[in-house]
Amino acid sequence: MANNTFGNLLSLTTFGESHGAAIGGIIDGFPAGLKIDFEAIQSEMNRRKPGQSTIVTARKEADEVQFLSGIFEGVTTGASIGFIIHNTNQKSKDYSHNVNVYRPSHADFTYDKKYGHRDHRGGGRTSARETANWVVAGALAKQLIADIKVNAFTSSVGEITIKKPYQDLDFSLIESNDIRCPDQKVAEEMIQHIKDIKKEGDTVGGTITCVIQNVPIGLGEPIFNKLHAKLGAAMLSINAVKGFEYGSGFCGTKMKGSEHNDAFNKDGTTKTNLSGGIQGGVSNGMDIYFRVAFKPVATLIQKQETINSDGNIVEMQGRGRHDPCVVPRAVPIVEAMAALVMADFYLLNKTTKI
Amino acid sequence: MANNTFGNLLSLTTFGESHGAAIGGIIDGFPAGLKIDFEAIQSEMNRRKPGQSTIVTARKEADEVQFLSGIFEGVTTGASIGFIIHNTNQKSKDYSHNVNVYRPSHADFTYDKKYGHRDHRGGGRTSARETANWVVAGALAKQLIADIKVNAFTSSVGEITIKKPYQDLDFSLIESNDIRCPDQKVAEEMIQHIKDIKKEGDTVGGTITCVIQNVPIGLGEPIFNKLHAKLGAAMLSINAVKGFEYGSGFCGTKMKGSEHNDAFNKDGTTKTNLSGGIQGGVSNGMDIYFRVAFKPVATLIQKQETINSDGNIVEMQGRGRHDPCVVPRAVPIVEAMAALVMADFYLLNKTTKI
Amino acid sequence: MANNTFGNLLSLTTFGESHGAAIGGIIDGFPAGLKIDFEAIQSEMNRRKPGQSTIVTARKEADEVQFLSGIFEGVTTGASIGFIIHNTNQKSKDYSHNVNVYRPSHADFTYDKKYGHRDHRGGGRTSARETANWVVAGALAKQLIADIKVNAFTSSVGEITIKKPYQDLDFSLIESNDIRCPDQKVAEEMIQHIKDIKKEGDTVGGTITCVIQNVPIGLGEPIFNKLHAKLGAAMLSINAVKGFEYGSGFCGTKMKGSEHNDAFNKDGTTKTNLSGGIQGGVSNGMDIYFRVAFKPVATLIQKQETINSDGNIVEMQGRGRHDPCVVPRAVPIVEAMAALVMADFYLLNKTTKI
Amino acid sequence: MANNTFGNLLSLTTFGESHGAAIGGIIDGFPAGLKIDFEAIQSEMNRRKPGQSTIVTARKEADEVQFLSGIFEGVTTGASIGFIIHNTNQKSKDYSHNVNVYRPSHADFTYDKKYGHRDHRGGGRTSARETANWVVAGALAKQLIADIKVNAFTSSVGEITIKKPYQDLDFSLIESNDIRCPDQKVAEEMIQHIKDIKKEGDTVGGTITCVIQNVPIGLGEPIFNKLHAKLGAAMLSINAVKGFEYGSGFCGTKMKGSEHNDAFNKDGTTKTNLSGGIQGGVSNGMDIYFRVAFKPVATLIQKQETINSDGNIVEMQGRGRHDPCVVPRAVPIVEAMAALVMADFYLLNKTTKI
Repeated sequence: MANNTFGNLLSLTTFGESHGAAIGGIIDGFPAGLKIDFEAIQSEMNRRKPGQSTIVTARKEADEVQFLSGIFEGVTTGASIGFIIHNTNQKSKDYSHNVNVYRPSHADFTYDKKYGHRDHRGGGRTSARETANWVVAGALAKQLIADIKVNAFTSSVGEITIKKPYQDLDFSLIESNDIRCPDQKVAEEMIQHIKDIKKEGDTVGGTITCVIQNVPIGLGEPIFNKLHAKLGAAMLSINAVKGFEYGSGFCGTKMKGSEHNDAFNKDGTTKTNLSGGIQGGVSNGMDIYFRVAFKPVATLIQKQETINSDGNIVEMQGRGRHDPCVVPRAVPIVEAMAALVMADFYLLNKTTKI
Repeated sequence: MANNTFGNLLSLTTFGESHGAAIGGIIDGFPAGLKIDFEAIQSEMNRRKPGQSTIVTARKEADEVQFLSGIFEGVTTGASIGFIIHNTNQKSKDYSHNVNVYRPSHADFTYDKKYGHRDHRGGGRTSARETANWVVAGALAKQLIADIKVNAFTSSVGEITIKKPYQDLDFSLIESNDIRCPDQKVAEEMIQHIKDIKKEGDTVGGTITCVIQNVPIGLGEPIFNKLHAKLGAAMLSINAVKGFEYGSGFCGTKMKGSEHNDAFNKDGTTKTNLSGGIQGGVSNGMDIYFRVAFKPVATLIQKQETINSDGNIVEMQGRGRHDPCVVPRAVPIVEAMAALVMADFYLLNKTTKI
Repeated sequence: MANNTFGNLLSLTTFGESHGAAIGGIIDGFPAGLKIDFEAIQSEMNRRKPGQSTIVTARKEADEVQFLSGIFEGVTTGASIGFIIHNTNQKSKDYSHNVNVYRPSHADFTYDKKYGHRDHRGGGRTSARETANWVVAGALAKQLIADIKVNAFTSSVGEITIKKPYQDLDFSLIESNDIRCPDQKVAEEMIQHIKDIKKEGDTVGGTITCVIQNVPIGLGEPIFNKLHAKLGAAMLSINAVKGFEYGSGFCGTKMKGSEHNDAFNKDGTTKTNLSGGIQGGVSNGMDIYFRVAFKPVATLIQKQETINSDGNIVEMQGRGRHDPCVVPRAVPIVEAMAALVMADFYLLNKTTKI
Repeated sequence: MANNTFGNLLSLTTFGESHGAAIGGIIDGFPAGLKIDFEAIQSEMNRRKPGQSTIVTARKEADEVQFLSGIFEGVTTGASIGFIIHNTNQKSKDYSHNVNVYRPSHADFTYDKKYGHRDHRGGGRTSARETANWVVAGALAKQLIADIKVNAFTSSVGEITIKKPYQDLDFSLIESNDIRCPDQKVAEEMIQHIKDIKKEGDTVGGTITCVIQNVPIGLGEPIFNKLHAKLGAAMLSINAVKGFEYGSGFCGTKMKGSEHNDAFNKDGTTKTNLSGGIQGGVSNGMDIYFRVAFKPVATLIQKQETINSDGNIVEMQGRGRHDPCVVPRAVPIVEAMAALVMADFYLLNKTTKI
């Protein structure tokens, strides 16, 4: 039923809990013959890993990925690619006080009711640790569709927002600061805001914008396999995501058709791009761009009242090492999932015309 | 590869073009033993069909669905349910002037480039006529999960928005006006706005809010089959949709964790519901609610410059019968897709625990 | 869950009961740009249809297929191809005496127990009438992979068997007799045997051999998508099939490795072909050949004792118009399913190498 | 596309090459709440592993499976179950002489042509080492459907065949000899025959019969998800398998309907069981039994002429440690795949009736 599988022709199937021995996955459908750049993969892993700056969790994980199959002498063979990431820093005792506690706005309650039995340590399967697997697969996908450029960045933290259109930003600056915002001035404000929030033991939400450039015309499939619907499903799979919009998005609902239509140039490009690079679920060659909403992290370093599995009121306080804002570490995750979607449609598009 | 299939255990596969002889579909995985209420199905069809009021297209379609299999003596048999809806009002000549024209912000260009050959009549496969199939399947799904209540309504048209929280609305009023807005005063403003826009030959966007109530705890599956991710994919499959948010959505990104967390009551319900009834991809028993963004209809009854397949600039003007605002007719479509998602997870949840 | 869907990239989803208004299907993933030969499709339908000779059922069905979508101006568009075949000769009253009776070696009992409710008329969904849908899809698949030649023929009826290897047969003679056996002398024996069996009100089984020639090297996918495993699953989906073997099959189990290995010629062809054209699940360019076992038809024009749904012993006798031997009409069905498998792998193979 | 995935609701996805660091898999859809018997799993692994007797390969592998997720405190959690089996005995140098050689009746040629690049060591992904993964998953499946009894045994080696019907055999004797044949006298002949063949450096084929007992009525789904079609596909996925038949199989094709029909007893059981426990693709509660054909192992300890990738004739001789007959070690593999199929349908059947 594919609960733990993403993608069609190119698919990723995953396993792993926050505090188990390891997490990992299997990539199926990856074409044979690609020389893999392993450093580029580890570099993506490093962008996601904890402990990389003062505004993310201080937890340390090496997040070294080991490939077990499907790559021979550095080149993909067409066989399924198995990989594993060992969990090296599992402090299960950090969570022992939480065994029966349902943390507010976490999945403890729903998992317990659904399954009747759960791994409570660090959220178990619901932990965002899982997304390390996605970054591995996404890094491979990026290499498969190397001509397509996928760039995500932090576009807002709380009320602090980039005001410029993405066209005015320099994506080469994304990695130049800890919040991954290419507008340096706004980045500083965001970082300061997160530091302030962290001092309160509180957390804050934000948004990530992703821009996909140099996309061939024709990727995406009607009717239930539309390019933007898969991008949306991919983003909504990421922990803490509450919304997705592409092109004009929710703002577009306030416009008239005469303002919203993208007039064509003679060469098939369009003068404006409120469509966001997709028409009828299929890429039109213009930039694809979308925005993803992340809620504030639910784990607070504050006292909260909640209930336990016996239905009793208990007091709890986050004691582990947690992110005050999920957004900076989510940037490579957004890119990874976007790359997986694009690579899948790239392969599928090879079969749609005789 | 399931381009034209939606759903897993309960699935809908569809066919049909705007101006072909018929559209239709096959519903697979529908459990045996349900007595079908055919009037209820036709009633949903009538909510979607064209020509029902002065603010939607004047085109007339009977939209009568004929079931061909899977139901014997009024009761489902477990066999696949085939159905067909004949196209009775195909004025292909309305579109003959458009043979080579790429209408702005339509899928003409992308389909032509992707497939090299397309049915240009009324948008062919890209026409929203397809959604009539979805309403059939959704109406069946509603009967399967009769205890779960799915209500959608128009929450904004252009800048005109319902200000009340959904809890203060009376859903029984949704069908009491042409725009399907349960706030009568706002509904009147919306209707007047659409009439004004229509006079200009222009169109306008809007949003639909959907509320799903009386949901059992435990529907939805980790990791890539989360309840909200499937709802999002379902909504993003609907023509003209540009965005999806659930629970606190994009607004939630501006909040602190201490404001956003939903504190538990002793019985497992929560005092607030910014989560939108879903934690970790699984329903928690609270109301599920989400919002869907629809862009303004691309077909204008105004002159527009565009290009044709030869790369020449041409002038065009919509001459068919078109909706000035897609939202009122999209309300039953949103409900249908939501019901399909919920029914699928309802079945799947029967298998997740020994 | 795809109970009623066959195929991956190229898929067929079907509906329909023996005595409903119509049967039909939806073909998804068929590439755009193929000019369809409709006469060739009807010609395949005629090979399967009842009433074509004295050794098959006398029931008459026009079996005219109507395409409803996905083909525009005679050329495929990439959209899903919906089709319908109206049931014109439903004599439901033939079956009214069978309402509660569980016919021996039919699916009446299992369907009743599984679903609690069934369409008893002519077997309902379990009727081989369904296979008319497969022949439509298979005929389209044949046109997609026109270079690959798929030929099936009757290789045995009861104890009467073709003794020659398939290489000594002239496939152009398959359609020259009613049993579809290219060895004319054996064909006459088979036909006479069926006539004798029919006079007794009895039935007889048989085998069909299928040979697929001119296959490109590389079709088929490891590990669970092997070419022969899909061919096997396809054949085992056909009503009355009890076995499948390819290449040396069951006989090969009695051989030594030194006898069984196919030695290579310098050009990569092999001197023998006990492998049956497939190595490791992937075609090697040699002929693919396999054999399919069909049991004798369960409906006899003889008195049989059986039980009804109340658990009472009842006497019954087939009264409808039935085939004394399913094999001659199954030949085009075997070809159709084989063509669907080959076309699916042909498309998939476009994506396995960069 | 699921090349490396088997199953629907309950699925297994695998990776791994013969001479990589490890093989492994991910089991998805396994219900929460089952207490796992790890010894029983290892016991199944030991039945399959090399080096267990004098009639199988002398290669030694511990074949210890390590579970990495989805099981917490010994009980399944509903999360995906990741597992790994380290390759401890990879003598890659055994294969270095084979780098460019296409071994006869192996997949070297087809893989090379299909993918353009392959792991030649020990067959790489095509090695039967992969089946160790299947035995892990099958052992878990057996525990899920503990009431259903799955027993496979060697029914023939070369020309030496069990003559008794399976009902006259004592399945508790299957493990009492090295060939896994419950007829002790025949077992001795088989073992002697394999020893003789081995001395010649040759190999021999055989058949395995599998009997599934205590099956609930109603497992299996029409039309393309029939119980026997999935069992067939499962068996045809096993390395070296050339055929599958169930119930009366190929013999049934020679019978008349009046001989072949299984008459009902009053309680719904049948007096005979030529149907093999399945009617219309759905289990009828009688024993399911089927037979699987295995070709002789292609690797001979004899000189053979073959070609290399340059198209030159070369002489080769198997030098690794190989099985003279695959059948004894394939018995637990057949059971594992059968158990996976049955468990999948067991889960699916929970959703087919309201």
